[in-house]
Amino acid sequence: MQDAQDIINAAHQMADAARAAILPFFRTGLAVDNKRQSGFDPVTEADRAAERAMREVLARLRPDDGILGEEYGAAEGSSGLTWILDPIDGTRAFMCGAASWGVLIGLSDGQGIRYGLIDQPFTRERFEGGLGQARLVTDAGSRPLAVRNSVDLSQATLLTTYPEVGTSAEAAAFRRVSQQVRLTRYGLDCYAYALLALGQIDLVIEAGLQSYDIAGPLAVVQAAGGIVTDWQGGPAQGGGQVIAAASADLHRAALDLLNA
Amino acid sequence: MQDAQDIINAAHQMADAARAAILPFFRTGLAVDNKRQSGFDPVTEADRAAERAMREVLARLRPDDGILGEEYGAAEGSSGLTWILDPIDGTRAFMCGAASWGVLIGLSDGQGIRYGLIDQPFTRERFEGGLGQARLVTDAGSRPLAVRNSVDLSQATLLTTYPEVGTSAEAAAFRRVSQQVRLTRYGLDCYAYALLALGQIDLVIEAGLQSYDIAGPLAVVQAAGGIVTDWQGGPAQGGGQVIAAASADLHRAALDLLNA
Repeated sequence: MQDAQDIINAAHQMADAARAAILPFFRTGLAVDNKRQSGFDPVTEADRAAERAMREVLARLRPDDGILGEEYGAAEGSSGLTWILDPIDGTRAFMCGAASWGVLIGLSDGQGIRYGLIDQPFTRERFEGGLGQARLVTDAGSRPLAVRNSVDLSQATLLTTYPEVGTSAEAAAFRRVSQQVRLTRYGLDCYAYALLALGQIDLVIEAGLQSYDIAGPLAVVQAAGGIVTDWQGGPAQGGGQVIAAASADLHRAALDLLNA
Repeated sequence: MQDAQDIINAAHQMADAARAAILPFFRTGLAVDNKRQSGFDPVTEADRAAERAMREVLARLRPDDGILGEEYGAAEGSSGLTWILDPIDGTRAFMCGAASWGVLIGLSDGQGIRYGLIDQPFTRERFEGGLGQARLVTDAGSRPLAVRNSVDLSQATLLTTYPEVGTSAEAAAFRRVSQQVRLTRYGLDCYAYALLALGQIDLVIEAGLQSYDIAGPLAVVQAAGGIVTDWQGGPAQGGGQVIAAASADLHRAALDLLNA
């Protein structure tokens, strides 16, 4: 991509702006309202403030790009590029004060996700992938991201967010994998994909995702050498049922069980 | 307690020593062996190095106190005080690279736990309670810890570590509470008690704990104004089934359901 450095610069400025918008709200008492009447889906002032802050950066630096944001919807662009924004992925973790939530930024060229990042403002960790980057950026500098060497499914660590996973059929499919791995952990939200890209774990399996939940993580995991698809092995960028794996062997073994 | 400041000073030096011992092992590939042949209970070099480091501090500063440590067992003392140490609570989280593990330090006078702390080395957060302290200490300074105002059970947030909780009867009892609260989250380990003391959540319910899993968290939560007991409402310092609540009303409501 011709303007890769411009894009990367814009993404970091967006993530910086989101951090500044969100952190004053983290671990303070704040009003919660429910986005949907059924179920529990808190939207915080922080969520909205962060998306506005990111949109302001784009308006200034890249006014021709399109935007698809969780909070403020779609804005058409003319460049062929679309930024996909989830200002706070993991709002429930955020409300609990846990640090598994993150700011998700992805960039689509209409064919696929070319670049993305997962930013954790509280721990000041930024996981970045695509356009030649695969790195974790912290105040101490940056280190390369790479998935770890392949292990057998029986030795794998699997992460997801909720034990319910999704529908009862989705939960049953998840359990077929979970019963074969060494360790399953819950409650990680988007941070699970960051830990996969860091080489700490082997599999993430989720369902019921939106496109903005997966665009950033997908770019980070792929840049680190991992595989991200839907549960049928097709493109994951639309959301829904998503699996991310550290290796092709693990991916295949898990897909077989999901579809058994 | 006469030597409260000495005790607090020793605890902070122990936690500092544990941080220095553990962090070089965090998020690196490291050998894992299994403590028990059945089940998955990784013990890392970090675990052992941290307990040795804490014992060295005690040998230097408080040689007359007793010690009960997860890794190296019991050492009798003559002062009537016993330090209860869990060098890494949440070893599975540690292996995943998540930051919900912690260094737990508690101090018993034979009657109960008088002081304790939960230290998270990666985020550099130290939650401390007892002997006149109830605070979170970070590089930026310290802030008071206090549980939040009482909410109805129907509005409460409940944390635990594993969806399995413990035995099937324990899991069923947990679900009776879980079904009545607004939000249940998993995977928090000892950090759940820290979030309760921070006023971010309302309930922690666990089973199968060891005494060293709960001594530090118990002191922190009680100092912040919370209640920690076993599931029968008795002392929690022995471990087993533990409930921690932000208020007496919530505690009573949850106990009723656990024992329904």
